[in-house]
Amino acid sequence: MNIVEIIKKKRDKGELSDEEIRFFIKSVTEGGVPDYQTSALLMAVYLNGMTDGEISVLTDAMAGSGDKIDLSYIDGIKVDKHSSGGVGDKTTLVVAPMVAACGLPVAKMSGRGLGFSGGTIDKLEAIPGFRTSLTEEEFVTFIKRDGIALMGQTKNVAPADKKLYALRDVTGTVESIPLIAASIMSKKLACGSDSIVLDVKCGSGAFMKTFESAVLLAEKMERIGRANGRNVYALITDMDQPLGCAVGNALEVKEAIETLKGRGSEDFTELCYIISSFMLVAGEKAGDLNEAREMLMKSVDNGTALEKFRKFTKNQGGNPEIIENYSLLPQAPAVIDLKSPVRAAVSAIDGEVIGSAALTVKAGRLTKEDRIDHSTGFELFAKKGDNVEEGQTIAKIYAPDEQSAREAKERVFSAYSFDAQAKKEKILLGYIDREGLHID
Amino acid sequence: MNIVEIIKKKRDKGELSDEEIRFFIKSVTEGGVPDYQTSALLMAVYLNGMTDGEISVLTDAMAGSGDKIDLSYIDGIKVDKHSSGGVGDKTTLVVAPMVAACGLPVAKMSGRGLGFSGGTIDKLEAIPGFRTSLTEEEFVTFIKRDGIALMGQTKNVAPADKKLYALRDVTGTVESIPLIAASIMSKKLACGSDSIVLDVKCGSGAFMKTFESAVLLAEKMERIGRANGRNVYALITDMDQPLGCAVGNALEVKEAIETLKGRGSEDFTELCYIISSFMLVAGEKAGDLNEAREMLMKSVDNGTALEKFRKFTKNQGGNPEIIENYSLLPQAPAVIDLKSPVRAAVSAIDGEVIGSAALTVKAGRLTKEDRIDHSTGFELFAKKGDNVEEGQTIAKIYAPDEQSAREAKERVFSAYSFDAQAKKEKILLGYIDREGLHID
Repeated sequence: MNIVEIIKKKRDKGELSDEEIRFFIKSVTEGGVPDYQTSALLMAVYLNGMTDGEISVLTDAMAGSGDKIDLSYIDGIKVDKHSSGGVGDKTTLVVAPMVAACGLPVAKMSGRGLGFSGGTIDKLEAIPGFRTSLTEEEFVTFIKRDGIALMGQTKNVAPADKKLYALRDVTGTVESIPLIAASIMSKKLACGSDSIVLDVKCGSGAFMKTFESAVLLAEKMERIGRANGRNVYALITDMDQPLGCAVGNALEVKEAIETLKGRGSEDFTELCYIISSFMLVAGEKAGDLNEAREMLMKSVDNGTALEKFRKFTKNQGGNPEIIENYSLLPQAPAVIDLKSPVRAAVSAIDGEVIGSAALTVKAGRLTKEDRIDHSTGFELFAKKGDNVEEGQTIAKIYAPDEQSAREAKERVFSAYSFDAQAKKEKILLGYIDREGLHID
Repeated sequence: MNIVEIIKKKRDKGELSDEEIRFFIKSVTEGGVPDYQTSALLMAVYLNGMTDGEISVLTDAMAGSGDKIDLSYIDGIKVDKHSSGGVGDKTTLVVAPMVAACGLPVAKMSGRGLGFSGGTIDKLEAIPGFRTSLTEEEFVTFIKRDGIALMGQTKNVAPADKKLYALRDVTGTVESIPLIAASIMSKKLACGSDSIVLDVKCGSGAFMKTFESAVLLAEKMERIGRANGRNVYALITDMDQPLGCAVGNALEVKEAIETLKGRGSEDFTELCYIISSFMLVAGEKAGDLNEAREMLMKSVDNGTALEKFRKFTKNQGGNPEIIENYSLLPQAPAVIDLKSPVRAAVSAIDGEVIGSAALTVKAGRLTKEDRIDHSTGFELFAKKGDNVEEGQTIAKIYAPDEQSAREAKERVFSAYSFDAQAKKEKILLGYIDREGLHID
């Protein structure tokens, strides 16, 4: 088989055979194909697409390019979740203890963040003492005893995807539905769960700008999962602004704890309930979404969800006193307020602008080598649809110094759009399961 | 400026600005852009095309990426020729002395061949003693005194094109009209001529498979030339079989001399007259194509064209006795005949198959390091439209040994198609000048 012939076939809108796709992925994994040929093929896929059959084989080949995770030590249905991410997305920190409190074990391996803000691992490391490097024995012990553990990725999961993603990032081939679907699902397939709840963000701040494109991506992922014997719920959720109130690592930990105490921001709390409801249904801990939500609300009301978070923090070396005393979390040296210059309604908050502002205060990293400042970030008090008075504090800036605080303040302000009136959107726009698209 | 943004713009069918194109070519020339980004952009150009404006700027930027040739020492209009090439294309060897005999100076720099068979430089080196490495002083002296000289490329002409071509070759992005047009014309613009006669081959054995695509390419190149102040004649010629009778270096020299003696094969002789007629018109040595052809026929009839070839050979150290005695050319050790197994008409000869057969007898090179055997190749006596008898010798195989002779014979035979009847096509299908398309 010849890589140039494969490139030409896709260039000419042909359908690649199973053997051609597997040969390509094997070559990428082993370094047997130069990057310039890979990127030419990626651009041809971007522009000419892939059939469902091609995507399914591509995903399976990528999932098989490295280690597979064995979760057979957990009894019952193993449920995983994945979010296509975004500024202020700290759902895992809330959803994991909530569903664990309802009896569904969570064995999660997560990555660090690159770009706008930290990943789940970075956020947890804002908690003094918290260890995200666990031995496999510790990991299994915590899950078996307390139903919850989270650690950094140690295994070599889907290395072909890592290579392709790095190349897509610098060749303008990220925003391709077949490639996004295969990338996400290859990692999920390698991670050994039976059911997967996917949160596909949609809107100006997300990869998928329109509902239609989000549905397309969701459909592809559900089909890939089904073709590989997995039960997939692909949720399409609105993302026309950063998620919740906090952006930045310690600030997001604080918001997660507030949410577990029942005092979270409206949009973020709702999303956490939605995702965890689907997880309980997927794991057959609840008969339907309504029953699931009742169980989850109870776990917040009676404090069992917060207790799971406390146990989880303690297990992994973190100081559980932060739960009652937020001042034990890293504190930013410079804090300033952003006040609204007008009486108006917030009509939009540009997530990308907020994300790049987060970089100026070092709440995120641009390169793998950058060090994150866990203390910095923003709290956005006014969200889309909120009416604000002139002079009202709409955001708080947490920065390493006054200079960067002022710079970030300018940027955060530029992310806001105001109008005479604006309305809140509902979060869950629809979801796809094996029966098709459900619009809420 | 940012290369990823440029890739994304072309990916999304945008028109690149002059600055973006010049930035890209400058980065390619200086090695400031990694190959994987270049190949992604090339694939996007392949699939989404370029406007005439983009192509013109791309060509100018590539022409300006290296040295420019100064031909100002030649009086009058400087005329260059270019053929998109093909198996058995030895036109330069005939056309150059013919037009020089009619008073139009020829100062040609040529390259070596890669792929099926040798380039013009390789063919001339089949003549014992012939030097294609000249000093610039020798080159200018020969042209001023005798109106003809030919040497290997020494200057660094259009290095950006070299880099792009090398990458296109291995990423399935060769057959793109904008990229082919820019590649050819960038080298022609850098070479300092006022007028350019282009021979765009069309047919199964050429890049351009259809007349329509050849017209498109011809139009683009004429427009690029015009936008840069050059007078361009872009000929569209039929290429459904190898050109002329001989394929292989010494064999092609012999055929060129036979043609200058008025005894060349029908199709090849006609093409030489066509190209040289356009050159004389372009150089204002003849008022029209008819007058030009008469001058050229006279130069063959009265032997002045052959005398030019003799002088040219002598000037550059070659043994002029080969003109009368072909046995002084390198002789292949193994020569066998291919006889027709049927009584039929030749309906086609696949140029690509003949080209790959030429590699088996070492008449061409696959890598720059390969050594060419000047003695080997084929003579194809029966061409498209010819009727052949059973047992008639339709080709002669010249090989380094019996083994490879037999292998090549099989391949050459497989290139032939036969039918009950077949007709000859005319060679010149049409041409494009500043007035538009002329169909003959």
